[in-house]
Amino acid sequence: MKTQLIDGKSFASNMTQKIALEVKQLQQEKNITPGLAVILVGNDPASEVYVRNKTKQTHRVGMRSFMHLLPETTTQEEILNLIARLNKDPDIHGILVQLPLPKGLNADTIIQAITPHKDVDGLTAYNTGKLALGHKDGFIPCTPLGCLMLLQKELSSLKGLHAVIIGASNLMGKPMAQLLLQEGCTVTIAHIHTRNPEKLARQADILIVATGCSELVKGSWISEGTTIIDVGINRITTKDNKTKLIGDVAFEEVLGKAAKITPVPGGVGPVTIACLLHNTLQAARNTIK
Amino acid sequence: MKTQLIDGKSFASNMTQKIALEVKQLQQEKNITPGLAVILVGNDPASEVYVRNKTKQTHRVGMRSFMHLLPETTTQEEILNLIARLNKDPDIHGILVQLPLPKGLNADTIIQAITPHKDVDGLTAYNTGKLALGHKDGFIPCTPLGCLMLLQKELSSLKGLHAVIIGASNLMGKPMAQLLLQEGCTVTIAHIHTRNPEKLARQADILIVATGCSELVKGSWISEGTTIIDVGINRITTKDNKTKLIGDVAFEEVLGKAAKITPVPGGVGPVTIACLLHNTLQAARNTIK
Repeated sequence: MKTQLIDGKSFASNMTQKIALEVKQLQQEKNITPGLAVILVGNDPASEVYVRNKTKQTHRVGMRSFMHLLPETTTQEEILNLIARLNKDPDIHGILVQLPLPKGLNADTIIQAITPHKDVDGLTAYNTGKLALGHKDGFIPCTPLGCLMLLQKELSSLKGLHAVIIGASNLMGKPMAQLLLQEGCTVTIAHIHTRNPEKLARQADILIVATGCSELVKGSWISEGTTIIDVGINRITTKDNKTKLIGDVAFEEVLGKAAKITPVPGGVGPVTIACLLHNTLQAARNTIK
Repeated sequence: MKTQLIDGKSFASNMTQKIALEVKQLQQEKNITPGLAVILVGNDPASEVYVRNKTKQTHRVGMRSFMHLLPETTTQEEILNLIARLNKDPDIHGILVQLPLPKGLNADTIIQAITPHKDVDGLTAYNTGKLALGHKDGFIPCTPLGCLMLLQKELSSLKGLHAVIIGASNLMGKPMAQLLLQEGCTVTIAHIHTRNPEKLARQADILIVATGCSELVKGSWISEGTTIIDVGINRITTKDNKTKLIGDVAFEEVLGKAAKITPVPGGVGPVTIACLLHNTLQAARNTIK
């Protein structure tokens, strides 16, 4: 079986082109320019790359971007005060706090301080609950939303398929499970305490891996015909001292077995950013009513 | 293997005795009597039985019970007005709307109108989200909370066990999955679109069935040693025209294979009501701070 690569880059590019047109229309018809505020605390190099990418894309589709680059020494109270101001600012439609935060800051308290209608990352209790209850008017976390969009494009119907998700985080694994349940998938969630992940993975029609462990999933874990979504982005240093990005799946080993797979990079990553723009546009539109 | 019956009745009886003592203490020390408002619309006979039971138990532990029995013709607006009043009433700590509601009423709009700190059924978006995020200060729906308590009592540790949940409702299957993930279980959620539920059920260390289909789960679905929680309560009429309650599991068929099982009646049912009292007591205590 020839494994087909799922081209997240071109999918995201189509999405952002469409979003750019819709932003223009919103400006012309309603005089609203969607605005996204991004808060980055400290100097984590990976986070800086992500934030720079998000800002660049925000500009590219014609939205306003408000960067708040705060030093590592910023107190929790200062961040909460900033969020309180952004919550009230009519030019800001979406607020994103780049994770992870430096030690000593309580990420949960900070995230929950974002007003739900500007929570474009979908991480507040209110939006998390709306997703779990199947309400359609909340914000869905960008990475699982992107994975769902890719799956819907690649597979004709998800109903009745067995999706196995490895990784049970609040940002990815758990909301992904909710989305796939809504599509009629049977869903298995595996994680660090799971005794036989390879046995479960072999039963999957759809295998979604989001663990942060480089090449955790081996070729022997994959049955013929599985569609794999590899959410991992792990930086490794090669023998000739270069930095390389690899996923949570041993890519070479699954080629020829899997039906389809997202490459790393160029798979889930670009679609995640496009989904952030999609959510920010939605937040701006919601202010019309 | 001799199958052990899980005695929900005596577990619930121990729980309510303890709650009764704590209610007395709360009255003596803080002059607070927990109060539960129950709203029943229409004349569904099963709902009337449930509500009567809940009221009886509420009284028995020394709480106040406020029954609102409304005719089938009640409008959505009237119910929303009632909930708005109850939300503000300082004597009411918990509000419960008995489901299902008559046709023409939007259950979701009505439930979401309950203020989250009186939502002792744990069904508002805010409490649903708190559970999904692993926050410990929200209200957890009573039936899955009761099932978890029974499992914790019966099994020494849940970590790493494979729990298979059949039924993916907002009231039971989905919150149950969240609770078991938090305990370190691997979780599979099956439902009406699942292609091979019997194959999945045979992999379960813990099998939880909440489908409303009488005796859906047959003996052949069960592997030796599985612990079964049967959440179903189905009323059937026997040949001699008597009403009998049966579960979602073919009870006789699994005896000798399952390690443990909750009987119907006398399993999950009584524990659910005890959990409602537990949540109402918690809601009353939360008003102290």
